[in-house]
Amino acid sequence: MRLIGKEEIENIAIGAALLGTGGGGDPYIGKLMAIQAVEENGPIRLLSLDEVPDDALIVPSAMMGAPTVMVEKIPSGHEALAAFKSLKDFLGQEIYATMPIEAGGVNSLLPLALAAQIGLPVIDADGMGRAFPELQMVTFYLEGASATPMVLSDEKGNSLLLNTIDSVWAERIARSVTVEMGGSVMNAIYPMEGHFVKKASIKNILTLEEEIGRTVREAMKQNINPIEDVLELVGGTALFEGKVTDINRRTEGGFAKGTATIDGLNKNKGSDCRLHFQNEHLLCEVDGKVRCVTPDLIAVVDSETGMPITTEGLRYGARCTVIGIPCDEKWRTEKGIATAGPRYFGYDTDFTPIEQLNAKAGITK
Amino acid sequence: MRLIGKEEIENIAIGAALLGTGGGGDPYIGKLMAIQAVEENGPIRLLSLDEVPDDALIVPSAMMGAPTVMVEKIPSGHEALAAFKSLKDFLGQEIYATMPIEAGGVNSLLPLALAAQIGLPVIDADGMGRAFPELQMVTFYLEGASATPMVLSDEKGNSLLLNTIDSVWAERIARSVTVEMGGSVMNAIYPMEGHFVKKASIKNILTLEEEIGRTVREAMKQNINPIEDVLELVGGTALFEGKVTDINRRTEGGFAKGTATIDGLNKNKGSDCRLHFQNEHLLCEVDGKVRCVTPDLIAVVDSETGMPITTEGLRYGARCTVIGIPCDEKWRTEKGIATAGPRYFGYDTDFTPIEQLNAKAGITK
Repeated sequence: MRLIGKEEIENIAIGAALLGTGGGGDPYIGKLMAIQAVEENGPIRLLSLDEVPDDALIVPSAMMGAPTVMVEKIPSGHEALAAFKSLKDFLGQEIYATMPIEAGGVNSLLPLALAAQIGLPVIDADGMGRAFPELQMVTFYLEGASATPMVLSDEKGNSLLLNTIDSVWAERIARSVTVEMGGSVMNAIYPMEGHFVKKASIKNILTLEEEIGRTVREAMKQNINPIEDVLELVGGTALFEGKVTDINRRTEGGFAKGTATIDGLNKNKGSDCRLHFQNEHLLCEVDGKVRCVTPDLIAVVDSETGMPITTEGLRYGARCTVIGIPCDEKWRTEKGIATAGPRYFGYDTDFTPIEQLNAKAGITK
Repeated sequence: MRLIGKEEIENIAIGAALLGTGGGGDPYIGKLMAIQAVEENGPIRLLSLDEVPDDALIVPSAMMGAPTVMVEKIPSGHEALAAFKSLKDFLGQEIYATMPIEAGGVNSLLPLALAAQIGLPVIDADGMGRAFPELQMVTFYLEGASATPMVLSDEKGNSLLLNTIDSVWAERIARSVTVEMGGSVMNAIYPMEGHFVKKASIKNILTLEEEIGRTVREAMKQNINPIEDVLELVGGTALFEGKVTDINRRTEGGFAKGTATIDGLNKNKGSDCRLHFQNEHLLCEVDGKVRCVTPDLIAVVDSETGMPITTEGLRYGARCTVIGIPCDEKWRTEKGIATAGPRYFGYDTDFTPIEQLNAKAGITK
């Protein structure tokens, strides 16, 4: 167990945005929420997975909905309290701890804010090791857990307890309720026992996010470029360096879909990069060749400062470096690829691990 | 207490369709469901309101969604069992009886089918005394009850327990979930105590429906016209007789909206009638003058047989009689008119009781 305060939150926010691969919400909002909660309630207890009792009830927490809406209606904490109480009553058992379901500017930080508000510890693990847009896109689901019973609550005081036949139905119903409730709600979801969480989650993710953030922030103080150090931390590859010359963005079915075109500034790494995104960056092509594809991670960072750039933050003229990172092995299974591989998102390509794509492109590291 | 069997169900189906004022679903479906349930489980116990203990937990039941969808996916009874069990567990109290929330081809009969399936009695009362399209349009709401906690379940096995800040939010959220669940779901809704039901519901409605149906069916056997006897039973007025010459129907926001034009065949009663509907008939104008308006009831029946015609059943050339019936006094309060008066549905007219409109038109009865 260690304590998480303001400094750790600042670091986690940056690392979470990087692993959020362009999605997962605005890190600034998540950070503000978590810092405010810590200032009001004191530091948060972070537990490593091996500190969790096997029979403890763990309930991950997340916001669902459009991050742009969240900026307008920041959660008050009441909805989280209501959701946790409601799920506790239904299950007839005390909740031992919460945890994030994904990495991202909002959903890595929100469980920290909630934990401070309701006095629970947070587990140093999540269910993606990255960000994805749908509720069944978590390693808990891949290992057989159900998203339900789950509780959704809004800031007005409405809440619902959902029991579905599978997590895809949970996603469908919860998504339509979220829209009706005003575009963003608080979820208490995927209740699990400690022994299952140990098997089914991505370990030490908050610590990794914190290390990434610390690396970026310390380099900034010393005015040096942190990208090589970050690549080392995450086992990633710099796929491309360039300047954004075109962005084609549309909103479709609740997704921010589109393509960014980046012109090369380091000709060793190619001259033209197309980045396809649906909330998250999902497919990276360099000079017409696939270089990284979901569920592997594609992050975009500022070429100077290493600060992660979200899909909403991608702007004409931005100088950026595109980074590819191998996903957790859980995602590279048949079910993992069916759940969050390129074909699920409508891209006409098979999943190939970044290590193989690197080798094809002549990158040995 | 008296028993309801196949014969009573046949009668109730007709009376419910008449009080359903054109909406409330296809009486044929509701009847089939109830008869099948009675054949499998034996007759249903019908309780009068004064037989209900004051502290008994009463849970009305209803289908929500498009009646046209219901034809394709008739409820199996499992969803009702699941919904009732789930609400019982949440409230921690046995459910004493169920009841309809509205009059109509489906929602008067469905509680009978469920009652037979799950072995509960049905109370001889409802929450409208007619049909209306939204969950807050019930006398329970007018008297201050909450639609929630309510449970929605579908035939696939998905269910959700909803707690909202008011019944208008319950309507909004439940409506969007219903669409997502495939267009029609089973609700266990407005849990109330016996003493409240006695105060807030419309009494003896199933008995009235049964008497209407018996009158129509017996007249049919004797080949006589039942309309005068039906008017006597419901305190109604024949507003117009004619032939449907035009129907303008569109689907808008989940409603079947439109206007029917009827040409007069009995010139004493006027030459031109416009019937405006949104699932239910809501406004009747004869020769340009309002003659009956929601929440008062407007029923359309076959001019020969007295059989009720739903808005979907209104066809070119049909010979019909338009009947106006005073609604229950509960609807004529300020809150009642705000909830289900003409302006709520977008008609630019105030509510005037049918008795006054009759007097203006020179009809003293």
